[in-house]
Amino acid sequence: MTVIYDKVAVIGMGLIGASIALATRRAGLAKTIFGSDQSPEVAAVAARLQLVDSFEADAVHAVADADLVILAVPVGAVGEIAEQIVPHMKSGAVLTDTGSTKRSVVHDVGPHLRDDIIWLPSHPLAGTEHSGPGAGFESLFDERYWVILPLDADEADIVRFESFITGLGSVTERMSADYHDKVLALTSHLPHLIAYTIVGTAVDLETQLKNDVIRFSASGFRDFTRIAASDPVMWRDVFLNNDTAVLEMLQRFSEDLSYLQRAIRWQEGDKLEELFSRTREIRRSIIDAGQD
Amino acid sequence: MTVIYDKVAVIGMGLIGASIALATRRAGLAKTIFGSDQSPEVAAVAARLQLVDSFEADAVHAVADADLVILAVPVGAVGEIAEQIVPHMKSGAVLTDTGSTKRSVVHDVGPHLRDDIIWLPSHPLAGTEHSGPGAGFESLFDERYWVILPLDADEADIVRFESFITGLGSVTERMSADYHDKVLALTSHLPHLIAYTIVGTAVDLETQLKNDVIRFSASGFRDFTRIAASDPVMWRDVFLNNDTAVLEMLQRFSEDLSYLQRAIRWQEGDKLEELFSRTREIRRSIIDAGQD
Repeated sequence: MTVIYDKVAVIGMGLIGASIALATRRAGLAKTIFGSDQSPEVAAVAARLQLVDSFEADAVHAVADADLVILAVPVGAVGEIAEQIVPHMKSGAVLTDTGSTKRSVVHDVGPHLRDDIIWLPSHPLAGTEHSGPGAGFESLFDERYWVILPLDADEADIVRFESFITGLGSVTERMSADYHDKVLALTSHLPHLIAYTIVGTAVDLETQLKNDVIRFSASGFRDFTRIAASDPVMWRDVFLNNDTAVLEMLQRFSEDLSYLQRAIRWQEGDKLEELFSRTREIRRSIIDAGQD
Repeated sequence: MTVIYDKVAVIGMGLIGASIALATRRAGLAKTIFGSDQSPEVAAVAARLQLVDSFEADAVHAVADADLVILAVPVGAVGEIAEQIVPHMKSGAVLTDTGSTKRSVVHDVGPHLRDDIIWLPSHPLAGTEHSGPGAGFESLFDERYWVILPLDADEADIVRFESFITGLGSVTERMSADYHDKVLALTSHLPHLIAYTIVGTAVDLETQLKNDVIRFSASGFRDFTRIAASDPVMWRDVFLNNDTAVLEMLQRFSEDLSYLQRAIRWQEGDKLEELFSRTREIRRSIIDAGQD
């Protein structure tokens, strides 16, 4: 139990914010944990679950005197909240976020920064299809990657922040905003978009067929519905804020899908089997990389 | 332990065939279980694991005197195997299959049938991404649906066959070939096609990006790789044999994906959020239907 930042403030007490608070407490990484959320419903649940030592309805009060401020809100809201709180942060404090898109966050927070604030955008590659403060749990980040953008911070400040993230259970990885957004577009954003689409296609079927699709949802579709149950506002913001990389990956995906569509139409079994065999190897690589 | 068919013959000892043999033995549904597979490697594993009471290299020998013959082979091979074995089946025996496409199976087996054989095509909605005889396990079908096509069989024969399937652990459901193929196109075939596509898109990325996609595979992509690790030959045959329904669902899917693509390009967040909220409800329905 080593305190790394005396006071930590978590702004946004959804799945990620709540889990950060719980993991911080588990590891004793802070003396006090403050929390804030603009929704009164979320505030009530957070208080009942005692997720933090002190809950402030106004984020400005939560961040006062904090040594580390974590913005765990949808990426579309990060800029606005930074504008509100940065003037009230103490000199030398660290500011981070947990957003799934990093170019947009760097862009949106930039205008509101101060020279005496250490800005280290970050992104935990962890989550579930559940949302809200009640969905949080202390082991959410265990052995998951947590991407950190060093930007122009001092090495000592980065290392200290990394030790906090490691304390939450994660494995840290430094990356640029551009590269992060490209990797996540394919590993996370496009799969979510596709899952949302196919489940949406089912929603629009005539009633009996839709009911039977639900009843007989075999493994494929059922997995997609789990992904497509993720938080709508968070994901809306992801697509609006990583549009360039998502549209590029979507273009590649559509070309590849057209290739298979054509192979099915023309009964070209060899093309199908060849691709299906190659994709098996990727699965093997992921198991070997210990990411399953 | 009630014997329903004295002798059961399982042709094809992959994941499904092996699991059927094990589940039949678990429930004591047969006095003897014969097995066959045209691959010598599969035969060796099946023998070593003692999946059946007697293994025959030649399917014709396995089906002799059998009261129930189960074809658990890729749908592209069902017609050819039926042609080989039907002449050697005993009068009054039941013939079934486990294929994921039913119109094609009915079409391919039809020419080889005899009047004194009870033909009941079927499809267990169960499976894993693993394949081969070593992947089989006795509880694979527990509480999973198993679709049966009654065709023109006598009610007493259908009921007896259903009691066998129920004995394997499944819930039976009667359906027409057309309707089955339409439901499965969306719940299973299209999700597999899309998973294969997106994982294939990753395979074609430049090396460093591909390696990082594997390393940082977040939940979405990782789920897709599991689906895309399924048996290549089985799935090649599925797409070649349910091409009409798959292409129709794929057309709907593509239109819906274009709608979201356009919403991203034009930053129409309300359209994204509206769909993402609707898809959440489908997930709720599936959980309520006890299919998760």
